[in-house]
Amino acid sequence: MKAAIAGASGYAGGEILRLLLSHPEIEIGAVTAGSNAGTLLGAHQPHLAPLADRTLLETTAETLGGHDLVFLALPHGQSAAVAEQLGQDTLVVDCGADFRLTDPAAWEHFYGGAHAGSWPYGLPELPGRREELRATRRIAVPGCYPTAVTLAMFPAFAAGLAEPDVVVVAASGTSGAGKSLKPNLLGSEVMGSVGAYGVGGVHRHTPEMEQNLSPLAGAPVKVSFTPLLAPMSRGILATCTAPAKPGVTAALLREAYQAATKDEPFLRLLPEGQWPTTSMTLGANTAALQVTLDERAGRVVAVVAIDNLTKGTAGGAIQSANLALGLSEELGLPLNGVAP
Amino acid sequence: MKAAIAGASGYAGGEILRLLLSHPEIEIGAVTAGSNAGTLLGAHQPHLAPLADRTLLETTAETLGGHDLVFLALPHGQSAAVAEQLGQDTLVVDCGADFRLTDPAAWEHFYGGAHAGSWPYGLPELPGRREELRATRRIAVPGCYPTAVTLAMFPAFAAGLAEPDVVVVAASGTSGAGKSLKPNLLGSEVMGSVGAYGVGGVHRHTPEMEQNLSPLAGAPVKVSFTPLLAPMSRGILATCTAPAKPGVTAALLREAYQAATKDEPFLRLLPEGQWPTTSMTLGANTAALQVTLDERAGRVVAVVAIDNLTKGTAGGAIQSANLALGLSEELGLPLNGVAP
Amino acid sequence: MKAAIAGASGYAGGEILRLLLSHPEIEIGAVTAGSNAGTLLGAHQPHLAPLADRTLLETTAETLGGHDLVFLALPHGQSAAVAEQLGQDTLVVDCGADFRLTDPAAWEHFYGGAHAGSWPYGLPELPGRREELRATRRIAVPGCYPTAVTLAMFPAFAAGLAEPDVVVVAASGTSGAGKSLKPNLLGSEVMGSVGAYGVGGVHRHTPEMEQNLSPLAGAPVKVSFTPLLAPMSRGILATCTAPAKPGVTAALLREAYQAATKDEPFLRLLPEGQWPTTSMTLGANTAALQVTLDERAGRVVAVVAIDNLTKGTAGGAIQSANLALGLSEELGLPLNGVAP
Amino acid sequence: MKAAIAGASGYAGGEILRLLLSHPEIEIGAVTAGSNAGTLLGAHQPHLAPLADRTLLETTAETLGGHDLVFLALPHGQSAAVAEQLGQDTLVVDCGADFRLTDPAAWEHFYGGAHAGSWPYGLPELPGRREELRATRRIAVPGCYPTAVTLAMFPAFAAGLAEPDVVVVAASGTSGAGKSLKPNLLGSEVMGSVGAYGVGGVHRHTPEMEQNLSPLAGAPVKVSFTPLLAPMSRGILATCTAPAKPGVTAALLREAYQAATKDEPFLRLLPEGQWPTTSMTLGANTAALQVTLDERAGRVVAVVAIDNLTKGTAGGAIQSANLALGLSEELGLPLNGVAP
Repeated sequence: MKAAIAGASGYAGGEILRLLLSHPEIEIGAVTAGSNAGTLLGAHQPHLAPLADRTLLETTAETLGGHDLVFLALPHGQSAAVAEQLGQDTLVVDCGADFRLTDPAAWEHFYGGAHAGSWPYGLPELPGRREELRATRRIAVPGCYPTAVTLAMFPAFAAGLAEPDVVVVAASGTSGAGKSLKPNLLGSEVMGSVGAYGVGGVHRHTPEMEQNLSPLAGAPVKVSFTPLLAPMSRGILATCTAPAKPGVTAALLREAYQAATKDEPFLRLLPEGQWPTTSMTLGANTAALQVTLDERAGRVVAVVAIDNLTKGTAGGAIQSANLALGLSEELGLPLNGVAP
Repeated sequence: MKAAIAGASGYAGGEILRLLLSHPEIEIGAVTAGSNAGTLLGAHQPHLAPLADRTLLETTAETLGGHDLVFLALPHGQSAAVAEQLGQDTLVVDCGADFRLTDPAAWEHFYGGAHAGSWPYGLPELPGRREELRATRRIAVPGCYPTAVTLAMFPAFAAGLAEPDVVVVAASGTSGAGKSLKPNLLGSEVMGSVGAYGVGGVHRHTPEMEQNLSPLAGAPVKVSFTPLLAPMSRGILATCTAPAKPGVTAALLREAYQAATKDEPFLRLLPEGQWPTTSMTLGANTAALQVTLDERAGRVVAVVAIDNLTKGTAGGAIQSANLALGLSEELGLPLNGVAP
Repeated sequence: MKAAIAGASGYAGGEILRLLLSHPEIEIGAVTAGSNAGTLLGAHQPHLAPLADRTLLETTAETLGGHDLVFLALPHGQSAAVAEQLGQDTLVVDCGADFRLTDPAAWEHFYGGAHAGSWPYGLPELPGRREELRATRRIAVPGCYPTAVTLAMFPAFAAGLAEPDVVVVAASGTSGAGKSLKPNLLGSEVMGSVGAYGVGGVHRHTPEMEQNLSPLAGAPVKVSFTPLLAPMSRGILATCTAPAKPGVTAALLREAYQAATKDEPFLRLLPEGQWPTTSMTLGANTAALQVTLDERAGRVVAVVAIDNLTKGTAGGAIQSANLALGLSEELGLPLNGVAP
Repeated sequence: MKAAIAGASGYAGGEILRLLLSHPEIEIGAVTAGSNAGTLLGAHQPHLAPLADRTLLETTAETLGGHDLVFLALPHGQSAAVAEQLGQDTLVVDCGADFRLTDPAAWEHFYGGAHAGSWPYGLPELPGRREELRATRRIAVPGCYPTAVTLAMFPAFAAGLAEPDVVVVAASGTSGAGKSLKPNLLGSEVMGSVGAYGVGGVHRHTPEMEQNLSPLAGAPVKVSFTPLLAPMSRGILATCTAPAKPGVTAALLREAYQAATKDEPFLRLLPEGQWPTTSMTLGANTAALQVTLDERAGRVVAVVAIDNLTKGTAGGAIQSANLALGLSEELGLPLNGVAP
């Protein structure tokens, strides 16, 4: 099978290419870009040695046509127009936000403008999603923060152990912000410094977390989300807490997380006492999880580490694409990280 | 006035020396160490050029005697024995935890062993503390995390705007762990990675935060605290949230924080919309603060950045010492950070 | 085929395991350690999710026996004794320095003690080495710096374009120093700082560089080598210069480097104008090269980036082992880096 | 005395302001900018708490007029026009390159365009410069790399111990490139990576090094210079080597460096065996030096660490300004670094 990648000069596009280079069933077809069209891929993704001589094409229906699947790694708001031009038989995997939210009101509140609709949500670990993904030609890849937070908290809600009132503080590497040329993303600014941004319930990933967790909680889940920018290129470390339901014990929590993760190839519940670090998952499609009960504060505390570009974007995209293509879900996806 | 520094080869001791080098009223006397006694300071603190040729002495009553003030930057549990040997006229400023907690039960629960008692608490910004510090010869310097969290949340509690149920996630630079030779503190492990540790209500700084905030809240404050290790040498960025009391607005919050900070030389409430980064305060004795209301989640969200070694340890120690010595509180303490 | 790895809890051992997890023909057998024997691999290499439950065995003839190949990632000086106990049919790949140098005098000058002898040198790109490696059961894996410097300079010497008087300054990530618990390797010390060490012709990798380049130069090559410790976990960036021979032009240099690299799967001469960064090769077995002529100074300047743990140690080891095992040289070795 | 700072929103301008905040004799007057004029300084230099509310003015003769001294931290090529409009009594300190080179041919070769002339060169440590600086109203602040390299090598040349054929490899933090919005300066690109740039004798700082060293060598010094970009915000670590003259010993070298540095307040020759790291000098106006003889290679090897923004730009500027203003050269300039 042959895949086109739109947005191949950016970080998400680069990671899709990196993973596809090791994918036994998917061949890399057209690589396209916006303003970088016409230049060599090697100028933008110098780490992808085997693809350095590829020329970036314009992102058009023609260049993307004729592929079995198309990955869209475009700025928010551009996917709908491109997707419309691709045949219904083509598997379209959108790494943007355009089709993630089901609630038009949430879309308008957080993104503004008209809601483009929603596509099957590419988080196979969420109960019920796998079947949906196996039958679709359109996939909305989750946001990186929602991936992390959902994986950290779904076992607690699925087992009825937490109140629907979640506080999340998540530190992300700078690649989560893309290759945008903004002063606050300069190396001189981010090295040696952690900062908060998008504070106070305004980050666009918030409703997506609530959308994922509410059905499992059987009640509207409220998320207070604070993202941090950390001095690293990759990785998300999310600390998620919610009040424990009465009678919850640390043992009950561990059981629930073991049950929810034991058959999941990419979820890794760490041994008791070991806590996630983002380096554990660098370049891997795994999520490293740990959970405990803070007895004094009466709260469930779950911590998760993912690579925002791999499990949080490109790896998650390929995992869902594998399902939609009838392949083994794990194909081409690394389980181990690159460390130290 | 002449100061001795015990523990001068460690990070806290080094920062005390760095600040005292610019202090117009305090001269550096004896510098002492444990296993490093007998070696030159320049081997351990090569950035302190003017002191490089000083020899580290043993930490004894003799070497520390004859000084107007003594800073103790010792491993936890060693301060009491040393302090006993110093005259009651000597100002003793303890950067360890030994005398911070007033509640013996909290001490035993978190630290184990016998409670050594408590000394006046060196956080002048806390209502009522300044007077106490002006009259003492013994000062317990707050922990770095409690300094950050208390400064972030005291205005909300003092103004009655938050419920006493706080969730804190705080990212710290590695110098907070001292110069301990542990594998997880190696550069290879920490660079490019954020990790959680001490999760689930077990970190020793938790009861100190509760001790500081409860009197202002007029009720026992419960803190769920998760510390993170971030890939930077210095700095703490703490995100602190608590449910807002009914009727609280963003404007009320801002007013409360303005009122609480406007006369404080080292508290800096940022302009609306600007959020703290640790680089703002690197090497400075300032705390950069911002607060907002998350209306959807109904929570107060306060974020603070400090330098864990400066305002969080050595700077805070000198600030309190200035008061006890009858000097201007601001003497010798930098207001601006070193950035980028 | 089945491989044992001795020294599996260290950085070199961990990287061998990471690469073998993707190797289609080599299965991971015993994993052994020194003082960490008896503990779980997951405690030391938490990024290697699929191997987390493996128990580290003692490093003995028994635990290492019964494998087709054995990788030794031991402290210098320990390999000879272990290797003696392994059968002559077992392929032994030593990542230590013990068998790299052919000249006993150089060994004694730089390492001290008795010279253990030399084994076929595992740098297949060096003219003539491939054949030797195909026929051996003993391989000495090159040092990380010599790998970088040799790959950067061999084309110039093989083509007779440079004088045998080389100046090298090479910046390495901290993993090159291993997991040693030394104060100067703490994250607090290395982050935000570059420093020099082993200056003045005393670094042990110096004679190895000279040994590799002299035969190609047809004269004794003199190397002035200064290593730097850089604030990153992985990677070596080596700048290598030598006086250009009379009549050398930039075009001649480029031709020589193109000729020397065009059939080498792991050598990548960058397009003119693009210079290596270590991120290009992070986690990859590739060396990124560039060369130019400094006309004003009359010097050849070659710059190379490798990952010290991959091409510089574990990847190079597997590349040579592939040859010795009669496999395709490229098997299981990533060509692309993990970036950003 | 009152100083205006043009270019106050950039990194060099910010560092001048940081240092002037502690200067006992210079008051901060107008702060001006280019495209950032009209905004608050706190938006660009959030670490400068005491100046956060200052408004950036346009850079004009009017805003800069009426000050005793004016610091120009402008893009190359803009200083001459501004300086012309300032009275001859005003001390003008130019941090740009415009007036550094005395040789018009070198200017044209490396910078292009017309040569603006040269001003007294602000490196007081160079023999003979102090007197010149005491008598001038115009100062050309040296480039950051030339400062480092000149300080590392002048003692060797002044004592006649080295041949005039220097190889320099210098790693710089990213602030040396300014706040330019270029993709290669993004945090995602620079963290975890060292790269070379400006290789092959093309970096503009090369002729400045030669200009400084040649008079001391009594012969034209040829410099082969390779700059590296390192993953840190601040600091330069320069490794400088040249062939030793016949008969030179390590002891002779040390004597020469001791003689050259012993009366210099900002030059710090480290004890034998200790090598510079940039963290030693972070935020300080000091240069940390070490030198040795590589006997095998017959080369002098000198290593120097400076903070590119402090001794390498703003601190050097103030040091020279102090001289021109008749003040103590050391006024307001920190001797100790901020570490860890």
